[in-house]
Amino acid sequence: MKTFYIDNLNSLKEGDSFSLYCWLKSLRSHGKVIFYQVVDSKGEAQVVLKIENFSEDKFKILSSVKEESALLIKGIFQSNELKALDVDVIAKNEFDFSPKPRSDFKIFDNKHLDHVLKNRNIYLRNKKVNSVLNFKSKYVFELHKYFQEKDYVLIEAPVLTEKLLYDDDTAFSFNYQGRDVWLSQCCTFQLEPSICSFEKVYNITPSFRAEHSRSDRHLNEYTHLKVEIAWAKLEDLIKISENLVFSVAQKMKVRGEKELMFLGHEIDLECLRPPYKRITYCEASRILNDSGCKFEWGKSLSKSDEAFLTKYFGEKPLWIQFIPRSAEGFPFKIAEHDERLTVVSDLIAPYGFGEILGAAEKICSKEELLKRMNEKGKDAPGQIERYQDFVDLRESGLPFHGGIGMGVDRVARFLMGLKHVKDVMPYPRLFGRRWNP
Amino acid sequence: MKTFYIDNLNSLKEGDSFSLYCWLKSLRSHGKVIFYQVVDSKGEAQVVLKIENFSEDKFKILSSVKEESALLIKGIFQSNELKALDVDVIAKNEFDFSPKPRSDFKIFDNKHLDHVLKNRNIYLRNKKVNSVLNFKSKYVFELHKYFQEKDYVLIEAPVLTEKLLYDDDTAFSFNYQGRDVWLSQCCTFQLEPSICSFEKVYNITPSFRAEHSRSDRHLNEYTHLKVEIAWAKLEDLIKISENLVFSVAQKMKVRGEKELMFLGHEIDLECLRPPYKRITYCEASRILNDSGCKFEWGKSLSKSDEAFLTKYFGEKPLWIQFIPRSAEGFPFKIAEHDERLTVVSDLIAPYGFGEILGAAEKICSKEELLKRMNEKGKDAPGQIERYQDFVDLRESGLPFHGGIGMGVDRVARFLMGLKHVKDVMPYPRLFGRRWNP
Repeated sequence: MKTFYIDNLNSLKEGDSFSLYCWLKSLRSHGKVIFYQVVDSKGEAQVVLKIENFSEDKFKILSSVKEESALLIKGIFQSNELKALDVDVIAKNEFDFSPKPRSDFKIFDNKHLDHVLKNRNIYLRNKKVNSVLNFKSKYVFELHKYFQEKDYVLIEAPVLTEKLLYDDDTAFSFNYQGRDVWLSQCCTFQLEPSICSFEKVYNITPSFRAEHSRSDRHLNEYTHLKVEIAWAKLEDLIKISENLVFSVAQKMKVRGEKELMFLGHEIDLECLRPPYKRITYCEASRILNDSGCKFEWGKSLSKSDEAFLTKYFGEKPLWIQFIPRSAEGFPFKIAEHDERLTVVSDLIAPYGFGEILGAAEKICSKEELLKRMNEKGKDAPGQIERYQDFVDLRESGLPFHGGIGMGVDRVARFLMGLKHVKDVMPYPRLFGRRWNP
Repeated sequence: MKTFYIDNLNSLKEGDSFSLYCWLKSLRSHGKVIFYQVVDSKGEAQVVLKIENFSEDKFKILSSVKEESALLIKGIFQSNELKALDVDVIAKNEFDFSPKPRSDFKIFDNKHLDHVLKNRNIYLRNKKVNSVLNFKSKYVFELHKYFQEKDYVLIEAPVLTEKLLYDDDTAFSFNYQGRDVWLSQCCTFQLEPSICSFEKVYNITPSFRAEHSRSDRHLNEYTHLKVEIAWAKLEDLIKISENLVFSVAQKMKVRGEKELMFLGHEIDLECLRPPYKRITYCEASRILNDSGCKFEWGKSLSKSDEAFLTKYFGEKPLWIQFIPRSAEGFPFKIAEHDERLTVVSDLIAPYGFGEILGAAEKICSKEELLKRMNEKGKDAPGQIERYQDFVDLRESGLPFHGGIGMGVDRVARFLMGLKHVKDVMPYPRLFGRRWNP
C-alpha cells in the first residue's frame, strides 16, 4: 500500500531514493528531458525524466502519457531535483477533459456548472473541490466533537419514517408492501422522546425535502444537525446556538487554515463573536416595509429580505425572533404574548448567506398540540395515527424542552464563503440532473 | 436550563441546598414520609418528603404522583439525606406502563419485543436501552475519530442514487417527477471516484436493503461504514480492518466501561487481538460438508455456517477469503488464481455474531467490469446508462484500490454482546411494525 506521500518528499536528503504513487497533472517535454508535474492528496511536485535513464521506446511512451493517468515513479533526489529512474503507468487516462480537472479555473462559476456536475467523478480532483471537501470533513467531525465533549448523546434517527414536519406532498415517499413510507424531513420526532432518557441529544443525518427549488441554499437532500434538550427555554437555545457557531468557526479557522487560504477566504471571528443582535419578526417586517421592500406579514423571509436585514444591522449574524405560526411547523410552541407567533428564532448569517439555524421551544401541552395539528391538517384520518405516540408523549412526563436545527451544508458554505450550498457537497443533490455517480 | 445533575449531588455538603430537574422512578409512601426514587441522565437518587415541609393538600398530591412524571425538586442535604422542601410537577405522566420503563426487567427478551417496540418512545427510558445507546453514541464517534486521526476524508455520499450494488428489486425506490430514484445500498459508487483526489476516504451513513428478513442481523435501514483506499491490495485492507476492529474495541472497553458493566458484558481484547485466522471459502465449504453441515458451493454462508466455523477454529474472528463471484456484487475483482472467485474477504465474529465486515479489491479494468455487469444484468438497456460514469472511470486514471464495508450496528451488537442487531437501534427499522415514532 502507499505509505510515501508527496509531502514526505521534503524530508529526502541528497542521494535518497523514493517511490511515489501519484497522478500526472501536466507534462512538458523538451526532447531529452520531460518534466512531470505530479499530484497526490498531499500536494504537488515536479519530477524530471532524463532520456539516459530510459530505453528509447519507454521514453517515447512516457513523453505522451495523458494527464490524469495514475503513475508509480521510482527515483532519486539529486542536486535539488527529483529524478525519475523508472515510471510505471498504473492506470491510463484515455479522456481529454476540458478544463483540465486539476487546473486552476473558476470551477464554481455558473458557466462551468453543467459540465462539472455532469463529470463530477472527474472534477472531484480539482484542488478547490478537494479543499472544500477536506474542510467539510474536518468541520463535520468538529460538530460531532463539540456535542460529544459536552455529553450529548448521538441518537441515530431513521431516514424512513411516517412523521413529517411539513406537508406530505413536500416529502419523498414510496409504498413498500402495502405501506406508505416517507423520507425524514426532520428527526425531531425521534430525538424528542429520547430526552426523557438522555436529556441532551443530537444527530447529524441526511434530511429530505421534495421541493423543486433552484435557490442557492436548498437541496433535496442535505445534512441536518438536530439537537434536542430537556428543560431548556428559548434563551438557553439561543446561547447554545451562538456558542456552537462561534466555537466551530474558531476551530475551523485553525484546522481549515490551509484550505481557507487556498480558497482565498478568511473566517471573520470578530463578526461571529456572541452575543448576536436580536430583532422580532414583527420588527423585521416593519423595517422591510418602511424601507420599501414589500413584505407580506406571515410569510417566511426571502433570501433578499434576509440580505437586506443583515446589511441594515451592519453585517453580523442576526436573530429573527417569534416567527408567525403560519410559517412554522406544528410542533413549535405558540408565544404567550401573541398567539399569532411561535417561540422560534432563526439565525441569519450576514452577507446574503441567509438562514443557517433555527431554535425553538416545543409544545408540551396535548391540547395545544392537537390545535396546531388541526390547523396544519395533521389530524385528518390517516394522518393522526401516524402522530399518535407523539401526541401521547405530552401525557407521559415530557418536560419543557427545545430543539435546534442547523443546515450543516449552509454553515459550511458560509464559513468557506462559497456562492452556492451545492458547492460543499461531493455530489449534486438537485433533481433535473443526473445527480450522482 | 438544567445545570445541576444527579451526579452533582455527591458533591453536596451538610446544609447545602439543591434544585434538581428529574423524573420519578418510584415512590414509597409511609404516611408522614414519602420516599421518591428519582432519575436523570446521570443517575438515580432517593429524596425524602416529610409532611411538615408541605401543606396538607400538596403532600397528598405528592404522595400519588405517577411514576415517569417530570419534577423539579428543591431541597437541602441534611444528615445524609436529600430532603425535599418544594416539589413541582413539571409534566405529569398519565399512563400506566407495564413493565415499568425504568425497572430492571429483561427488555431484550422476545416476550417483551412487541410491547417495547410499540411503546418505543417510552422504553427509551429503560436503563439498559440507555446504556446501549450511550455506548453506541461514543462508539460511532470513535469510528469517526479513528479515520479522522489517520487523515481519511469524510465523503458524504447521497442516499438518493441510481447506482446499486445488488439487484434493483432489493432496493427501495420511488419515482419523482418522472424519474426513478433508489435508496443507496452502498456508497462505494460515490467514494471510489473521490480516491483520485483524497486517496483515503470514508463515510458513515444509512444504507438500505428492501429485504424482508427476520434474521437477527439484518435491518431494512442500517448504519454503514464504508472505506475506500487508493493503491491498496487485499492484504492491506485486511490489516486495516483488523486494526480498526481491535482499536475501536480497545477504546470502547475503556470509554464504555460503565455501560458494559451495567449490561453485564466484557469486551475480550485477547480474542480480538490481530492477526486473525484466515481460511478460504473453498476450505470453509469443505469443512462444513465434511462435518455434516450440508453446504452448497457458490452460496453465501448462513448464520449457522458462520457459527459452526468460528467454533471450529476456537471462537476468534475468522476471515473467509475469496468469496465466489455468484455471491458477490459486480464491482469486486475476480481472483487471478481461480476465476470462479472474487478478491473479497469477509470477517466473521465469533460466538454466532456472524459477518461484521467485508474487504474487497475493486475491478480496475473496463473489460472485466463490463463482463461482470453482463453477468449481473447491469448492462441491460435502462441499466447501463446509470453506471456509465462508473465504467468510464476505468479509463480515467483510476488506480488499483479497495474498499471495506462494515456493519456499524453489527459490530456494536457484538461489542455489547446483544442478541439482536435491532437492540442497538433507538427505533425499530423492521417493516411490518409501526417502526418509528
